[in-house]
Amino acid sequence: MTTIRDVSKLAGVSVATVSRLLNQSGYVSKEAEVAIMAAVKKLNYKPNTIARSLAGKKTSAVALMVPDILNPFFPELARAAEDEAAARGYTLVLCNTDNNPDKEKMYIEALINKQIDGIMISSYTISPGQIVALQERSIPIVAIDKPYDGYPILSVTAANREGGKLAIRHLLESGCQKIAHICGPSHVHSAYERALAYEDSCAGMPWYTPSLTAFGGFSVAGGYKAMKEIYRMHQDVDGVFAGNDLMAAGALKAIHELGLSVPDKIKIIGFDGIVMDMVFPELSTVSQQIYTLGKTAMDYLIRQIHDEPIERKNYELEVRLLPKSTT
Amino acid sequence: MTTIRDVSKLAGVSVATVSRLLNQSGYVSKEAEVAIMAAVKKLNYKPNTIARSLAGKKTSAVALMVPDILNPFFPELARAAEDEAAARGYTLVLCNTDNNPDKEKMYIEALINKQIDGIMISSYTISPGQIVALQERSIPIVAIDKPYDGYPILSVTAANREGGKLAIRHLLESGCQKIAHICGPSHVHSAYERALAYEDSCAGMPWYTPSLTAFGGFSVAGGYKAMKEIYRMHQDVDGVFAGNDLMAAGALKAIHELGLSVPDKIKIIGFDGIVMDMVFPELSTVSQQIYTLGKTAMDYLIRQIHDEPIERKNYELEVRLLPKSTT
Repeated sequence: MTTIRDVSKLAGVSVATVSRLLNQSGYVSKEAEVAIMAAVKKLNYKPNTIARSLAGKKTSAVALMVPDILNPFFPELARAAEDEAAARGYTLVLCNTDNNPDKEKMYIEALINKQIDGIMISSYTISPGQIVALQERSIPIVAIDKPYDGYPILSVTAANREGGKLAIRHLLESGCQKIAHICGPSHVHSAYERALAYEDSCAGMPWYTPSLTAFGGFSVAGGYKAMKEIYRMHQDVDGVFAGNDLMAAGALKAIHELGLSVPDKIKIIGFDGIVMDMVFPELSTVSQQIYTLGKTAMDYLIRQIHDEPIERKNYELEVRLLPKSTT
Repeated sequence: MTTIRDVSKLAGVSVATVSRLLNQSGYVSKEAEVAIMAAVKKLNYKPNTIARSLAGKKTSAVALMVPDILNPFFPELARAAEDEAAARGYTLVLCNTDNNPDKEKMYIEALINKQIDGIMISSYTISPGQIVALQERSIPIVAIDKPYDGYPILSVTAANREGGKLAIRHLLESGCQKIAHICGPSHVHSAYERALAYEDSCAGMPWYTPSLTAFGGFSVAGGYKAMKEIYRMHQDVDGVFAGNDLMAAGALKAIHELGLSVPDKIKIIGFDGIVMDMVFPELSTVSQQIYTLGKTAMDYLIRQIHDEPIERKNYELEVRLLPKSTT
């Protein structure tokens, strides 16, 4: 494949000059233009969008700060963010913060020192005040998975409350008569919203009792433990809404060990729509379309970087019910 | 937490000046030094290694090029590479190439234009000639997962052949009397080495026949299909060595559907050691210690960037047998 470097060599000008001409981003002398266009023609050089936009910028970089890329939610988010960034001429810097506020602050300062163009952040711990302060220092920010109501902050979240209600309605319509909930950490916005959806939908039911909710910490091991707890107290549970897919997978493991058949004796649904092809039976879930979420958030970030007028508010993306073999 | 920016404000000097002093990386006037040290003392500023090293550099960045961060092997590799890079003062740029040679070349040119300090690359398609050419342009490179024998290229791989032999020996010692192999794409070095280990270990056995090997394409769906194929021809198979964990998970799904009990009727072992806590029974595997691999490779990359003398050859890392519930 012919590169911009080949064109620059043949034309006898710098790569930056070729890039200025092809991107129409600055002055190029008439002689250079003629030489470059001759080289482009001779080499049959066809920069595609990614190559052209990436080559045209020397330092354009955006950062994605996530708690931990090992959490299966984040690779798909990172992939979407990187695809969108590359297509718009930006490289993506990846930072793992472990939800540690000190580490978060260190990364932010380091990124600013390195003249990062903007930051997409998923954090349970960063305060709206901190984000606003960054914006006042002209650092565009997009928050993921958590809205900051009442602050001029652009965030992108899934319709978590509505998704939780979809899940419960689906279990009820599938014939469930006593539904339990495995919840994530209440300080995590999405976990909290999904738990509220369960309460909103079920608190008026005759069978409802608070001990039908158990804490699963958003992990496979936590979901497993929570399911065993719930079953010890309520052997007549016939439906489970887990606050994320990892906890649903853990619950499925526990149900399997308890010797109950899925979906005949007990139905289960998760939330997120992460890749779970190694789990069987295939898990029903509410998909929050992670790829769309990452792509949308990166689009908003780059539009802020380009000073396009966008309202700094929360953008809530639709979720989708994906019924599979466990309901 | 106090940041370098607070110190610079209180001292009335630029962040760059504070950084030059703290990193001893350039000239600082006597007055500035006194003011900075007073501010450091008053604010009790204690930059840790990451903050200090990241803050001290304006453009230091290394890239990690992977086929697709969605493949569960790569998040752990990326996490390790990023941890090591951050601790040494580098940010990590993530690129997804989809094993597309054109996309790979575009990223490489773009990264060079952006003055990347070094590239860690996992690729089935890049040629040794291309890597050597990059090195001649003073771009340090570390290749992951594939050695380039006979070329001055630094690569880090796991002991795939030895690991495959460990897996087979473990199945034999567990009592297996007819062992099948689910292999990955033969143009992928690690898949090829693991398949050779199976052949080396089993070709002399009285039960051996080529149709005991089926192609699983390194995916869950491929492993599922391969297992069904093998079982159709060999219903007496009692051991399966899958060339990676994803194919092992797919095979387990197929075995479950066939109604065979694991590990009583049939034993199965994978390779890689990726996080598989959602699979049950828990999968036996050969762990290639992905985190260590990513950390080691990043260490070698940064040592090359710092012009330390390191031999450009293949470094093979030890693997470990991790027997769990499927053997």
